[in-house]
Amino acid sequence: MKIEGKDYKTIWFENDIVKIIDQTKLPHIFLIKELKTCDDAVNAIKNMEVRGAPLIGATAAYGLVLSIIENNDLDFLKKSSEKLINSRPTAINLKWAVDRMLKKLLIAKKNEILNLAINEAKNICDEDEKFCNQIGLNGLKLIEETYKKKNQTVNILTHCNAGWLATINWGTATSPIYHAHKKGIPVHVWVDETRPRNQGANLTSYELNEEGINNTIIADNTGGILMQRGEVDMCIVGTDRTLSNGDVCNKIGTYLKALAAYDNNIPFYVALPSSTIDWEIKDHKQIPIEERNPEELSHLEGFDELGDIKKIQIYPKKSKSLNLAFDVTPAKYVTKLITEKGICDASLEGLNNLFK
Amino acid sequence: MKIEGKDYKTIWFENDIVKIIDQTKLPHIFLIKELKTCDDAVNAIKNMEVRGAPLIGATAAYGLVLSIIENNDLDFLKKSSEKLINSRPTAINLKWAVDRMLKKLLIAKKNEILNLAINEAKNICDEDEKFCNQIGLNGLKLIEETYKKKNQTVNILTHCNAGWLATINWGTATSPIYHAHKKGIPVHVWVDETRPRNQGANLTSYELNEEGINNTIIADNTGGILMQRGEVDMCIVGTDRTLSNGDVCNKIGTYLKALAAYDNNIPFYVALPSSTIDWEIKDHKQIPIEERNPEELSHLEGFDELGDIKKIQIYPKKSKSLNLAFDVTPAKYVTKLITEKGICDASLEGLNNLFK
Repeated sequence: MKIEGKDYKTIWFENDIVKIIDQTKLPHIFLIKELKTCDDAVNAIKNMEVRGAPLIGATAAYGLVLSIIENNDLDFLKKSSEKLINSRPTAINLKWAVDRMLKKLLIAKKNEILNLAINEAKNICDEDEKFCNQIGLNGLKLIEETYKKKNQTVNILTHCNAGWLATINWGTATSPIYHAHKKGIPVHVWVDETRPRNQGANLTSYELNEEGINNTIIADNTGGILMQRGEVDMCIVGTDRTLSNGDVCNKIGTYLKALAAYDNNIPFYVALPSSTIDWEIKDHKQIPIEERNPEELSHLEGFDELGDIKKIQIYPKKSKSLNLAFDVTPAKYVTKLITEKGICDASLEGLNNLFK
Repeated sequence: MKIEGKDYKTIWFENDIVKIIDQTKLPHIFLIKELKTCDDAVNAIKNMEVRGAPLIGATAAYGLVLSIIENNDLDFLKKSSEKLINSRPTAINLKWAVDRMLKKLLIAKKNEILNLAINEAKNICDEDEKFCNQIGLNGLKLIEETYKKKNQTVNILTHCNAGWLATINWGTATSPIYHAHKKGIPVHVWVDETRPRNQGANLTSYELNEEGINNTIIADNTGGILMQRGEVDMCIVGTDRTLSNGDVCNKIGTYLKALAAYDNNIPFYVALPSSTIDWEIKDHKQIPIEERNPEELSHLEGFDELGDIKKIQIYPKKSKSLNLAFDVTPAKYVTKLITEKGICDASLEGLNNLFK
């Protein structure tokens, strides 16, 4: 998608180097960063220079490419795999991507392994892009239906960034929105700020602006009353891990919006590529919920009046804070899942119908 | 209550001047500000140097005292009353306090009016302090019951600041907490940051710290998963306007926490002095919901690395935002109301039993 009118993807491989858009600098600075080693990839994931379940999967895949370039040795590759899987705990795509790479690489010949790795990482990216495009075409139908009934701008609320910046291209939650916009359906997006890291304000609003899509940032507290007032037609969010029973683990605060949508009879859709489905864990209490540095809450970065980037401490110095990164939305509050293979109920039966 | 070990109230009258703690500077700077004219009072309310339904009622009462000192004329007094009532739209106490003052002042003799006004403003403050103390003693029973069952620290979640800084002293939602703490019951408070103005982080955490009460700031998004995990025993919040049917209009985001509490079978209490009850409006859709400057979302103030206070812009420059200040929690999600006269159901019957 576009940044300042130019088409980008979130990650690409060029002359043995992986290039990413450093998303911790957005929206204030657009910076392309080079990853030269597997540790660079691990750190990029840990520090959220790349984030979003599909994109961290892709970065892990390219991390293994970098690992092979550094040291073409199976033990080194296995250690790199572990480091990558442990770089963030909640998104399932990380493990999915590493496992998919290893399946090919562990049986490969030494002189072929690098090319195989490059191809498979590229396949993961191409597939993600294709799936996100299909998610968009499937979700587009839901927006079209609402537009046909309403014949006015469709108001869509989203939380965090499940935009193209969270994937390779198109995004998950935003893909139906981009497709609707391209088709000429008037859409307006309520963008949850998404504290503490403000991915909604910093990334979703930013990428929607760059594509010319009307959007308004709101505090995470605001969605409820907008729904009470009838100013939200539907919610679409992404997911970091979807259980086979339809429970959705996504950015902290998603659950609260799902409750409000349920209370106001507003459809709550979750968009996902099948790589985020966890077929193993049966109980959401087993999902590891990442706890991040409390400084992400107490400190914020932005432009001062001179246009310089400043980091400030916004909390009382004596105060402590807790920074949990995800919560779980029980399946009963999810109206439908939007996947690359179609739309289904948030249930084992629904997912089985599409994927088994 | 205490700031740096010294006892304060939020507003007091001294040598024909009204003194307030400028709450827009907290927690970074503790500054006592002087209000010398009625317009000073209007601006202090508008700019949220004083905030919280009971405190803005008290400030309006003292605003009329300042108006009489400026110009002892009934037309001037009436104009001042209008300005004060219109300074913020949602909290009902503003109108309640002005009406109460006018009832005495409009029939007073010219040479007695100032003393009458000073007395009545003081009465309003004294009564609020007494009521908040009683709210605390009534709410204390609920915390005690939980402590008896659990025999471990009672975890209480609160939203925004319904602390002593929102009243004259004690607070509404925090008063039971202060009483429990004084009685030796171990309590821990989850403090919702409360975007966009962060009154939870800036004021509630600050005042709890100063009283030595264990508290942790969380993003507004976090309450849901803490409740899912069993880490919240009860919620206590304040209210800016309580309808006679038990619907509660309070700081934006309150509704979302009430939904999560309901979904997790956790009691959700609303603490209020009877001055916040609106006996007239029957439908919450008639409550004027204040829309404030979007800059309150896009800009934030804090300490930079040199210890200087800086204001920064945290949103993309092209983005627009919407800043609604309140939402409505329907009565069905409110477990009980805690008032100065006792605890009751959030219903007309419940309120009538106590107040009619």
